[in-house]
Amino acid sequence: MIENKAVWMEGTDVCLIDQRRLPHKMEILRLREVRQTVQAIREMAVRGAGSIGAAAGFAMAQAALMARGADFFGEVDRAAQLIRSARPTAKNLFYAVDQVLQAIRSQTQPRPAAERAAARAQELYEKDVEMTRQIAETGLSLLPSSGAVLTHCNAGWLAYPGWGTALAPLFLAHQRGIDLFVYADETRPRSQGAKLTVWELAQAGIQHLLIADTMAGTLMKQGRIGAVFVGADRIAANGDTANKIGTYGLAVLAKAHGIPFYVAAPSPTFDFECPDESAIPIEERAQEEVLEVSGLTRAGAEEAVRVAPHGTKAFNPAFDVTPAEWITGFVTEKGLIRPQPEALERFLSQTDGSKPAAV
Amino acid sequence: MIENKAVWMEGTDVCLIDQRRLPHKMEILRLREVRQTVQAIREMAVRGAGSIGAAAGFAMAQAALMARGADFFGEVDRAAQLIRSARPTAKNLFYAVDQVLQAIRSQTQPRPAAERAAARAQELYEKDVEMTRQIAETGLSLLPSSGAVLTHCNAGWLAYPGWGTALAPLFLAHQRGIDLFVYADETRPRSQGAKLTVWELAQAGIQHLLIADTMAGTLMKQGRIGAVFVGADRIAANGDTANKIGTYGLAVLAKAHGIPFYVAAPSPTFDFECPDESAIPIEERAQEEVLEVSGLTRAGAEEAVRVAPHGTKAFNPAFDVTPAEWITGFVTEKGLIRPQPEALERFLSQTDGSKPAAV
Repeated sequence: MIENKAVWMEGTDVCLIDQRRLPHKMEILRLREVRQTVQAIREMAVRGAGSIGAAAGFAMAQAALMARGADFFGEVDRAAQLIRSARPTAKNLFYAVDQVLQAIRSQTQPRPAAERAAARAQELYEKDVEMTRQIAETGLSLLPSSGAVLTHCNAGWLAYPGWGTALAPLFLAHQRGIDLFVYADETRPRSQGAKLTVWELAQAGIQHLLIADTMAGTLMKQGRIGAVFVGADRIAANGDTANKIGTYGLAVLAKAHGIPFYVAAPSPTFDFECPDESAIPIEERAQEEVLEVSGLTRAGAEEAVRVAPHGTKAFNPAFDVTPAEWITGFVTEKGLIRPQPEALERFLSQTDGSKPAAV
Repeated sequence: MIENKAVWMEGTDVCLIDQRRLPHKMEILRLREVRQTVQAIREMAVRGAGSIGAAAGFAMAQAALMARGADFFGEVDRAAQLIRSARPTAKNLFYAVDQVLQAIRSQTQPRPAAERAAARAQELYEKDVEMTRQIAETGLSLLPSSGAVLTHCNAGWLAYPGWGTALAPLFLAHQRGIDLFVYADETRPRSQGAKLTVWELAQAGIQHLLIADTMAGTLMKQGRIGAVFVGADRIAANGDTANKIGTYGLAVLAKAHGIPFYVAAPSPTFDFECPDESAIPIEERAQEEVLEVSGLTRAGAEEAVRVAPHGTKAFNPAFDVTPAEWITGFVTEKGLIRPQPEALERFLSQTDGSKPAAV
């Protein structure tokens, strides 16, 4: 598993799998400067809370390593600002920028500061990998003994370094010979379930079926779903959870059917400073994502087709927030955390660095 | 409104708008014999409970008008069997076949029997139009005074002759100068919301936005939705309602948010003989509908693109069943009917012909 990498650094280049081309094409982007890396994050060549965070950390390192002007610290600060503007919702992005910035500021000279930045970004990446391995262990005991797992969007290793989040327990279970079956939501508008999750599951050899987002409720009603596992982009101090649009509806459906609803995420996704959902910014993206669908034509070309008639307008919030009360528990590197303020506070106090650097 | 026709008869031909080509192309299919008409129903060139019913009624008339062999009544019976096999879920199809068959059997000679068939099919069509006009009136008083209407799939005049069902009150409200706003679910896998509903709303000049199916829950949570209006394919005697996949999930979400959930359907969609959801057959359709999406390429060609990787398997139930308890009321030609057995029984006893002919 752990050899699967969606984002990494080579010298001063940030490299990543272009997730917009998957599953039809495996293409590596080599980003030679911070502006390119930010653009790749913004345009979702890299997506998923952890992978966005890793790309952001590496982008900070890239900025520090390539800073050539006299105003090294000013240059790095401006890079941090640029990277923070790439996407608003995922906590990991801000966490990584803050952590690397803190490492840079622990030095007074450009050269050692840049070296610290690169080391810190890599260290954060490796910590992420280790945390997702622990999430896999935590989640293993939560897998249903009967019924399938339903998952939404993509929360595998493409989304989070190492083992992924929601998919981590599934990969581990399969590796240990445990039988399991997964239903993957298509996850319109960007279809990350149809494009990325089924691809990861197929690569791992895990049995699965793709469904349209409209089918989840019926599968639950028919008793086919034993548990729902999803990832997260940002979790507020009270447990309110921002994740891919559609997550909230699934949580409501799961509760109505008495099905456990787990959010898998390591501490860098938790936001101590954010009291509740009202403080989580939700990104609204271009209408075209709803109006169009991209895929492979019969002739084998990647193309976007317009589904709706010309002139149609669409609404496209990229995320929704699931209030803590709809969540059975958080599958973390420190075990299963119940969505209660005390439990969350205890969890956050056990993790280092979840408090952002004062900036 | 009423001039909008999705299916009609010209001589012995059944004509219909090919709904698979909309919204990108308006194409009329002229079906010259009953096998072609059945194929058009099966392949969803015509869809929507009422339009399927109308096509089935006209197909019966077509079969009777074109029967040339010595065994007229045997020929007509075989046609009825063929038409019944076209699609399993919509009650209107079976209702129309039974009604026209009954008209044929009221005669002893082929010629007058065929004439009765044609007259009866047309009469059923016109009754449908009149019933949807009454549904529009019933629904008008149920439109929310604040908040938008959310609708799923397509339940306009393409789906049901005349005014449609769920959209009928919206057309009427707009005609009477009442301000309203509609959110249309895309409705994967076949995207009837994105292709047909927004097209009908745009033609009528009704303000609307298209959303992905994943967004409905969030809109409800944000207080943007005042009521949900959907159509139906078959309603059991106890009020359990089969409709396009995704309807059930919407009903659960609506209840969780205290939003009224209305099913608009005239009596031919109600199935007296079907006690509850367990007796409603649910059509499972080809996986490709989930794996692919069709639309218009940038070059202007209609094409299906494959979203999922090669080898992916999908599950594709075309309908789901919403238990009566999740439904606020049925918007019918006889007013608003509550989903209680006595109210439903009273409603069905007031409507003629809802009991199928003994066959």
